[in-house]
Formats: sequence, C-alpha cells, structure tokens
Amino acid sequence: MTTRLAIIGAGLMGADHARIFAEELSGASLQVVVDADEARARRVADQCGAADAGIDPEAAILRGDVDAVVIASPDFTHAPLSKACIAAGKPVLCEKPLSQSSAECLEVLEAEMAAGRPFVQLGFMRRYDQSYVEMREALTSGRIGRPLMMHNFHRNVETPAADFTGTMAITNSAPHEFDVVRHVLGCEYASISAWQPRRSDTRVAPVVMVLETLDGQLVTIEVNNNAAYGYDVRAELVGEAGSVAMNHVAYTRTDADLSSGTAYEPDWRGRYAEAYRRQNRDFLRFVATGDFPATASSSWDGYAAAIVAEAGARALSNGTREPVQMIGRPDFYRRAAA
Amino acid sequence: MTTRLAIIGAGLMGADHARIFAEELSGASLQVVVDADEARARRVADQCGAADAGIDPEAAILRGDVDAVVIASPDFTHAPLSKACIAAGKPVLCEKPLSQSSAECLEVLEAEMAAGRPFVQLGFMRRYDQSYVEMREALTSGRIGRPLMMHNFHRNVETPAADFTGTMAITNSAPHEFDVVRHVLGCEYASISAWQPRRSDTRVAPVVMVLETLDGQLVTIEVNNNAAYGYDVRAELVGEAGSVAMNHVAYTRTDADLSSGTAYEPDWRGRYAEAYRRQNRDFLRFVATGDFPATASSSWDGYAAAIVAEAGARALSNGTREPVQMIGRPDFYRRAAA
Amino acid sequence: MTTRLAIIGAGLMGADHARIFAEELSGASLQVVVDADEARARRVADQCGAADAGIDPEAAILRGDVDAVVIASPDFTHAPLSKACIAAGKPVLCEKPLSQSSAECLEVLEAEMAAGRPFVQLGFMRRYDQSYVEMREALTSGRIGRPLMMHNFHRNVETPAADFTGTMAITNSAPHEFDVVRHVLGCEYASISAWQPRRSDTRVAPVVMVLETLDGQLVTIEVNNNAAYGYDVRAELVGEAGSVAMNHVAYTRTDADLSSGTAYEPDWRGRYAEAYRRQNRDFLRFVATGDFPATASSSWDGYAAAIVAEAGARALSNGTREPVQMIGRPDFYRRAAA
Amino acid sequence: MTTRLAIIGAGLMGADHARIFAEELSGASLQVVVDADEARARRVADQCGAADAGIDPEAAILRGDVDAVVIASPDFTHAPLSKACIAAGKPVLCEKPLSQSSAECLEVLEAEMAAGRPFVQLGFMRRYDQSYVEMREALTSGRIGRPLMMHNFHRNVETPAADFTGTMAITNSAPHEFDVVRHVLGCEYASISAWQPRRSDTRVAPVVMVLETLDGQLVTIEVNNNAAYGYDVRAELVGEAGSVAMNHVAYTRTDADLSSGTAYEPDWRGRYAEAYRRQNRDFLRFVATGDFPATASSSWDGYAAAIVAEAGARALSNGTREPVQMIGRPDFYRRAAA
Repeated sequence: MTTRLAIIGAGLMGADHARIFAEELSGASLQVVVDADEARARRVADQCGAADAGIDPEAAILRGDVDAVVIASPDFTHAPLSKACIAAGKPVLCEKPLSQSSAECLEVLEAEMAAGRPFVQLGFMRRYDQSYVEMREALTSGRIGRPLMMHNFHRNVETPAADFTGTMAITNSAPHEFDVVRHVLGCEYASISAWQPRRSDTRVAPVVMVLETLDGQLVTIEVNNNAAYGYDVRAELVGEAGSVAMNHVAYTRTDADLSSGTAYEPDWRGRYAEAYRRQNRDFLRFVATGDFPATASSSWDGYAAAIVAEAGARALSNGTREPVQMIGRPDFYRRAAA
Repeated sequence: MTTRLAIIGAGLMGADHARIFAEELSGASLQVVVDADEARARRVADQCGAADAGIDPEAAILRGDVDAVVIASPDFTHAPLSKACIAAGKPVLCEKPLSQSSAECLEVLEAEMAAGRPFVQLGFMRRYDQSYVEMREALTSGRIGRPLMMHNFHRNVETPAADFTGTMAITNSAPHEFDVVRHVLGCEYASISAWQPRRSDTRVAPVVMVLETLDGQLVTIEVNNNAAYGYDVRAELVGEAGSVAMNHVAYTRTDADLSSGTAYEPDWRGRYAEAYRRQNRDFLRFVATGDFPATASSSWDGYAAAIVAEAGARALSNGTREPVQMIGRPDFYRRAAA
Repeated sequence: MTTRLAIIGAGLMGADHARIFAEELSGASLQVVVDADEARARRVADQCGAADAGIDPEAAILRGDVDAVVIASPDFTHAPLSKACIAAGKPVLCEKPLSQSSAECLEVLEAEMAAGRPFVQLGFMRRYDQSYVEMREALTSGRIGRPLMMHNFHRNVETPAADFTGTMAITNSAPHEFDVVRHVLGCEYASISAWQPRRSDTRVAPVVMVLETLDGQLVTIEVNNNAAYGYDVRAELVGEAGSVAMNHVAYTRTDADLSSGTAYEPDWRGRYAEAYRRQNRDFLRFVATGDFPATASSSWDGYAAAIVAEAGARALSNGTREPVQMIGRPDFYRRAAA
Repeated sequence: MTTRLAIIGAGLMGADHARIFAEELSGASLQVVVDADEARARRVADQCGAADAGIDPEAAILRGDVDAVVIASPDFTHAPLSKACIAAGKPVLCEKPLSQSSAECLEVLEAEMAAGRPFVQLGFMRRYDQSYVEMREALTSGRIGRPLMMHNFHRNVETPAADFTGTMAITNSAPHEFDVVRHVLGCEYASISAWQPRRSDTRVAPVVMVLETLDGQLVTIEVNNNAAYGYDVRAELVGEAGSVAMNHVAYTRTDADLSSGTAYEPDWRGRYAEAYRRQNRDFLRFVATGDFPATASSSWDGYAAAIVAEAGARALSNGTREPVQMIGRPDFYRRAAA
C-alpha cells in the first residue's frame, strides 16, 4: 500500500520531510506540497516528485487523493491545521510544537477524543534517537537500577534571531527536552525552576532548569542557544546502580596541531537524520494500521510540553519554584509506554 | 521511475538487501527472490513484497519484468551470474567477492568491456561508510598532508566455521580492507607480506599483513576473526601533517561496576547499515542513469582484491614479501576517483 | 632547609600526608605523629620515619623541633588546632573543613589577622588537580570566552555511614565543589537552591544544587554519595565562546565481552595523588618563604565554604532560594588570584 | 638513609634526573654534577643543591662521598661509564641505550657478572608507565587471555636533526618499544622485518616493523619521528579473549570551533613524568637494598634492545626477515618477572 501525502510547509523541515518520504523510505507518494510561498512549494514538489504545489493547506488536507498530512508550516498553524486533519479524518505528522498554548493544545485533544481515535503524531523525533532508545533499554533491563536524575544539555551554535529571549529558549527549544525526558522516565513533572546567567553581550544567555517529577526524580536542563562551539545535545540518566549517558557520536577523529579532535555538526539535521527516518517510517505504519506508535509523541505529549513550558516561563520570570499543573490524563491517551 | 529487481540468494545478505530495497529506499520494486532453497526464497519474497520466488537464477535474470539484479548467492556463483547479467544487459549489484580467482575476475572484466559499458557494481560497501568518506575528505582537503601509512584492523567475535584458516582470513575477510584502502589512497599495491601468531587453541589465529603501494605508502592490516570481544573495525590514515582515525561509534556509554563502557556490536550488520543503504541507493541511480557511481567498486576493483588476496596467501604460506602483479588498468576502468 | 613536621591525626588522610612528605617530596622530616590512638600514631610514625608518636596535639604543636604542622584529625578539632598553630606561630596545613561552622571559621580568621600574617593553608587539594588548572588556563587564555556556567558532579561509590543525610552531603562533600568553583571562577556566590530526588531504599539520595555568583554565573552541583558505579568527579566550565570539561583519566581501556571499558577508582585517593603532592610541596614552600601560595585555600576560603554550606543546608530544608551572605573580604585575604 | 648521588651529564635528561632526585623524591642528596660543559654542570648543580660541579666523570664516580651514579651523558659514554661504576662498586642508573653496539653491551654484562652482583639499572622508564603496568596486570589476571599480538606506535612532532635516518629511528627510538614489549610479553624476539614509506620531503619517513617472538606472538611497531601533530605513544595488547590498549591521557577537553579536542604534549617529558619518578624511586631502593628492582631494565635488557636494533637495521637495509640471534640468557640475569 502506498500512502499518499500532503506536505504543508516547504521550509527547511518541510523540505526535509518531503525528501525523507520521497527517497529514504518506501511506501509513500507525495501528492501536493503547500506553502504560503507558491514558488517554494513548487521547488520542493519538483524535488520530491509531487505533481502539485499550492498555497491552501485546508484544500490540500481535503483532497481525495491525500491519505495523510505532514505539517511543517509556522508554529501558530500547527493546532488549527491538526484540527483540520482530525476533522477530515486524516492522520497527521505535525512538527513540534502542537501549540505553545496549552489551552490550544487542549482543543486539539478534545477534537481528537471526539473523533474517537488518534490522528495526531507529534514530531518530537528525539524519542527515536538511538541514544534515548538505549537509555530506555537501560531502565527496562534494570541495568542501572531505578532512575534518580536525568541531566540534559541542549546547545546551538547561535540563535536564529537577535531578539531571541530566555522565555523563548524555554518555549521553543526546551520542549524537546521536556518531551524526551518524560518519555524516558515515563512520568510527568511536579515543579520547575529556572535561571539565567548574565552574558557580556546582548545575545540570549543560557537557561538552566531544575524539574521534579511526580515519581520524585530530578531533571536538570540547560538550554544554551548561543553555545558558539557547535550543535551539541547531551543527556545522562542516573540510576541507583549506575548511569547511562549519551556519547558524542563522530565517525573519525583528527590528530593535528597538538590536538586530537572530533567534529561537531553546525545544526541538528545530521544529528537526527536517522531519528527522523524512524519517526516517519512509524508514521507510515500508523497511517496504514491506525495503531498509534508506541514510541511517538501524541497530542497529549504536546499538551504536556506546553504546560511545562508555560510553568518554566513563569519560573524564570518570577524566580520561583513553579508547580506543573496538568489536567488528569484521559484514558484515551493512556498507553503502556509513556 | 521504479527499478524492478531480482534478488538472487535469500540468505542473511540477500534478505538484508531485499529489506533495504523494500523498506529503506524508494524507487525499487522486488519482482522475484531466488534461492536454492525455495522455501527460503518464498519467505524473503513474502517479507519484502515480491510476488515471485524461485530457484533458477538465470531465469530470473532473463525475466522481462526485471531491470536489474542483486547477487547474494554463494561466492562461487558471483562471477558466472555476473556474466549472465552482462549478457542479459542488466546492471548487477554483486556481493563481494567478484571471485576469489583473479583469472575468473578477468573473465568478467572482458565480458563487461566487450559489452561496451559497465554493468557490475561490487558490494564493497565499506567505501560508503562515513568513516572512510571522512578519511578521503581529509586527504582531499589537504588537512593531514600527503598519506604515508594506513593501519587497518578487522575483528570478528569468532569465525563462522571451525575449519577457517589463515589463508581464508586473507581471501575472505581481508578483501574488504584491500578494497577500501585502495579506494582511500587511490593507488594499487606493490607487495604484500603476511604473518600469523600462534594461538593456544585450534581456532584460526590473526593474520597481520604489511603492504606497500606503488606510491610508496605502507599499509598494515590485521584480520582477527576470533577476536572474542566484539565486532570491531578500525583504521587510521597517517599523513605527513596529521592523522585521521576511525572512531568507535556508540550512542551511549554505561557507568556501572567501576567501569565506563561502550558496547561493541556482535557483527557487521548494524555497523554498516547506513553504508549498505547508501550503496544500494547508488545502485538504483546507476540503473536509472547508466553512470557508474564514483564511489562504488567495479569489476576492476574485484579483480584487484582477488590479485592481492592471492599474493597475500602466497606470502603467508612462503614467509616472503610477494609482489602484487596486476594487468595494466584498462582505460575502460579509469575514473577520476579510484 | 628541611622543614620539621608534626602530623596530627594518623587515620587515612594523616597517614597519606605522612607518606607524601616522607617519600614523595624532599625537604621535610617528620618529627612526631599524634593520634588519640597511640598505637596508630606509632605505626604511622614508624612507616614514615618519625622518631616520636604521641596523643597530645597541643604538645606536638609546641615542640621546639617542629616547624610546621599538618592537621588531619577529626573535623571538629580543625579550628581549635589551627588556632593553636597560629598562637604558636607555626604554619599549618589543615585538612578541610576549617570548620563546619562559619562562626568558628571567623574566629580563625580573626586570630590569623591578629597574628599579622597567614598561617593556615587549607587542604582543598582539588585546586591543584591538573583538570582545574587547565580550566583556569582556559579562562586566562581567553580561549572559551567569559565564563557563563560551571557544572559539577561529585560521586562516591557509597556513603561511609548509613546515617548520612542530604544535609551532610552539602556540609561534608559539597565544600570541595564550592571551593574549587570559587577558585576557578574567581568569584563569590550570591544564592543557592537545593533538591533531592527520592530513592527506593534508605540510603541518602543525591543532592542537586544551583548557585548564582555575584558576577552572574550559574553553577550546578550534583553530590551523589551513593552513586554505586565508582568514584567520579566531573566538571564543565562553559564560556561564551566554548567549553572546557574534565576528562575521565584512565591509562588503559579494555575490550572484552562486547564492551570497551575504562576503570573508575573506588575512592578519591588515586584520583588526587598528584594534587596532594603539589599541594604539600606548596606547603613546604609556604613554610620556607612565608609567602602564602597563590593556588592554595586560605582561612578565608574555609569560611566561604562554610557559609555556602550553611545556606545550602537551609535551602534544602526550606525549598527556598537562599542568599549567601558573607562578611566583606578583609584586605588581609585579598590576593591577585582568588 | 640518604643516597649520595653523582649526576653525569647536565643536558635535558641529566637536569631532569637531578630535579627529580632533589625535589620529587626523598632520600637522595646530590653531591656533584658533571658535564663536559662545566658552566652547564654548575647551573644544574646550583638548581638541585649539589655542592660540586665538574667535568671529569671518572673522578666523580670514584668520590668517597658518592654512593651511586646517574649517567645521562652522550650515548657513546654509557657503556664505558657503566663499567667504571661497576669497577667502583657503585650502582648506576644509566639512561638508555646501554650501547648501540650489542658487543659493547656484552662487555658490560661480563663486567657485571664478574663483579658478582647487579650494578646497572637501565633507564627504560616506559616499564614504569601506568599504561604498561596495567597491560601486564591484564595478562597476569587472565582478563584478556594469552597474548597474541602487541601493536605499538611511537610518534614525535619532528626529529631533532635533519640528518636523522630510518636506521636511527630503529637504533635510537625503537629500543623503547623493543624493551617495553619484551617486558610486557615476557619473551624474546625471533625475527624482525622493517619498511619505510616514501615522504614528499627530505625528512625521515616512518619505520614500520613486524617482529615475531619466541612464544609465537606478533609485534608491530611504527616509529614516526616526524608525525607533526604531537608526541604520541600508543600500544595495544591483543589477547585471545580481549584486548587492552593505552588511552590518550588528557585532563580536559575543549569544545570550540565545531570541534571537541584534547591536547597532545610536544614531547615525552610530561607524558612520562610519573614513570621517571617511579623508576628513580626504585633506583634509590636498589641502592639501599642491593636487590635489583623487579620492574627495572638491566644490562641484559640493554643487550637485548641492541641486538634487536641491529637486526632491525639489517632488515630495513636488506628488505629481509632477519632472525634475532641473542646469546643464551645467563642465570645471573634470570628473574621471575622478565
């Protein structure tokens, strides 16, 4: 069976998704690429072999020759377009975030529950990264005992925009960490605190967060969007009997000039190429079977990320230990694996 | 355009190729799977969505609905089946070796040259491995200066069979090293010497080889098929200004029991999953365009590997420094990249 | 010139100091070893070639043939014995802490200032560890830019005693981190917050602390006295242009059983052998010249560690962000290098 | 007891030995420093607190206030001065080589055997390096099974002199490898082969050697005196059940400019500081007790290194697999540990 896809958003991520479905996986055909910039939509459509390009996402969602949808348009469109997919009865792979507003996330949840089956797979691709997969296995196997702490570091070379703020670090970058930690630990958060050091220039300083989970674990997160030296994500899961940490993956090291060095990538795309591939393959299975993938993020996970980010923004602003207050998890969103 | 494939050989490698073409790449459809064991052929055919299964490789090659062929049947069949593909005018991705006999390799070369265009892509997938790609880039960029030496280590947990010999280590395992080193250095060999240490048990001991290239580089190769501790391939390319070495890629490390450890894989399949994918994607491009891939191994490379292995076997047997004597490289097989 | 020493305390650390002065450095002679357990004092005296052993520390301090004193007796004796050394006009190398009470530390400061010259070198040996030396050099050289954050991890295999508490983790173990971070950053703390995760058994859980410095840097500290897997100290200094992190130093790695591993030590003594040697050599120079070593911790540093620990204990107990309120630094304790 | 030393040779190594005995160990006093350049001798004497400086090594050896001798003068003086020490009945720590001539080494052996007790400790300090100590432990413990191979790499930034040759790489640099491998494996060599790649400039190219031991192990050695990138020594000991390899020891790593790097030292002195200290401490014990240290190299080991180097030079010159033909090991030089 071939899944016929509409790609909404032809920017960096949309083009990547189009390429992955067109070249790196079998079983998908791209029908239409949509972007506010029609020429851009056309370029991506041509590259990935889609016949059509357009500017109207709702129309694309409703097309009879489209089985499923990939949303990679600007963040504020994610929730309304996801709802449009639910209304159309079409599974959707939606880039993160579902919405930066937890209230808007709830609307998606309600629409999805009303529809009676899951439609929204959220693109927190980190869950598919081999490092996190192995961390979960370390817990499952009992090799490191019960988890006590998880330390997380998210570093970019620099922020895309000069007016990036600490709050944006929490609401834009940190959700990847919020989500994957919840996934690894299988638990929701109880509280969050946040700090920023002072920089000597005007670029946004790192944000350091400490979170408590309902199971009593501690989670530390550093988001450093101006780390300068490279794109670098680190994580360590500390258990009662040992610890599992992410390795810096590099295929070679170079000895020159009194130094032995391995390279950092400039951005996340190489780092997570395989994770995206696994995620998108899971999406095709989801479309084909209707069974929501055990690993993937759902609308609920999008809501959780938004709630934590909102509390984190308050914590940073107020200098307080903020409670993380979520609605009770609906049975609809209960799964064996968190 | 979809490339319609016949897979010949439904063992470990044949099944892997079938899966890669069926699931991890777009643009291929599997028409038929052939194996001497028809039930095995059927199982792989079912797994990868091929309609037909059979026991006759020649018939499969000749099918009108087959555009190209993948040969993963026993080694002795590689050359005759490759010739059959050439005769049928169909591109073939042939697992290594082309033949363990350099004379038989020459027959393939002659058939291919007579056909007037390249048909045979040889499955020395190491060339597509990111580590070797980066080593070549280190040379191209001038970062480590002119190459002086390349050190190579090939270690398996244990030999598949008890009657594996040192000669077999040279003719079965070492060709991967012979080929990828030629590829990285862009140069042929001048001589080879070989040794074996003594083991305390009857399992085959490692073989250590020293090769000289025509450009005056030294190449050392250790093939240790009973290394016990894990599947482990290492390489270091030493230039006049620095060195580039393969890293042990691991996604996590575990701290437990007074040790910090990273895992080795038990065999080569995980290690080279991405290399196989890249190789097979290149094969689909080759089929589609007729342009032989710059990175891939050709019949010539298969011949070179066989010649070196033959000289290596003599060197081990006689305790001598054996010259590597190849025919002159036909213009047909000259390419910018070795 | 030979410095004639009294060693007070013949436990693990006292015996180590005695051995270092007797065997690993020149220029010292051990006159007397003192311990509440006279037989233990005698054993260490015999091992390190000291003629005398005794049970009276004050008497040893006052001996005419003793030029300087090493205090490695129980923590509560550190401040009174240091004051006795000051009163006797004899330089003292005092194991950490100076006192767990900041008020008692102040008494030592006052005595020392009244004496008109520094006498007390405090045994925060981490400052002499090559890793921290290189971190300071990274700041001095400007290689990583202005410091933004420092992340610190202190892990023991297990606590010495079953009744160890989170507060004790802050007051006993964390002072090493408090001190060396102040030393690297050259700045005092402004606030401290603290958390503990929940363990599944009764052993003390890790403590995670976040500190702000007066210069606006963030410092995170994990003290995990029951880390199980090994003795492990980590640190990373994050600057605006890059980062310097402590390496896990191991002289070999072992490949066996599908793993590549390096060993952790069971305790801190091997890890810091060279740091102790450097510290103690600096102490001999201090005794010989009267110039307080640029690297060493002073009474002031002991006071600072105690103040921070007291605030940390309150922060853990109250769940608050506690200010760190120190007296103004007396000119007496001002040095170029913090 | 204090050992009164004469230091012969006030160059780099002589000054280092003087410093180690004067500052980093107890139990030695420096009586006299000798050098052909008297001013240089005087400078080192002043630095290490020796009263006297001179130009006559024999006179220094014969002084009544000298118990033992350290020889760090030019290589050709090592054997005659060692014999002078034997004749004077004084233990001597002689820098490597004992002599580059195996015949001259035999003269020292004979003199020493005639004297009836060991006098000569040879400065192959590598044996005291923690990495090799751990490799021997890996064999003793059985952790990696019986040894099969040892791979060794010795790299300098560049040769000290422009007229350095491949033969000199074998006779000057490789003996460190010859000796420490014999020490780790506890076995003599049977044969040696040698090669050199071609460089694009006139500096000496690396030498690659393959040796067989009498126990049937294989040993590979690369000596690259113009490696450019740093001082770097590597070794891997491969056993039937696993492998132990030297780690690159670095106390910190730096993340900057899209790279994560650790530093190489420019020369061997930092790398082996602790090994020299251990070696020299062992020498003081040897002087004090008369018991030859289990770890140290003896005259026999100096002879063995010279014989192998001579065979290696022939192998390089002739392109042959040269036998290593030693005299039978005299009982005088038999010890439990090789």
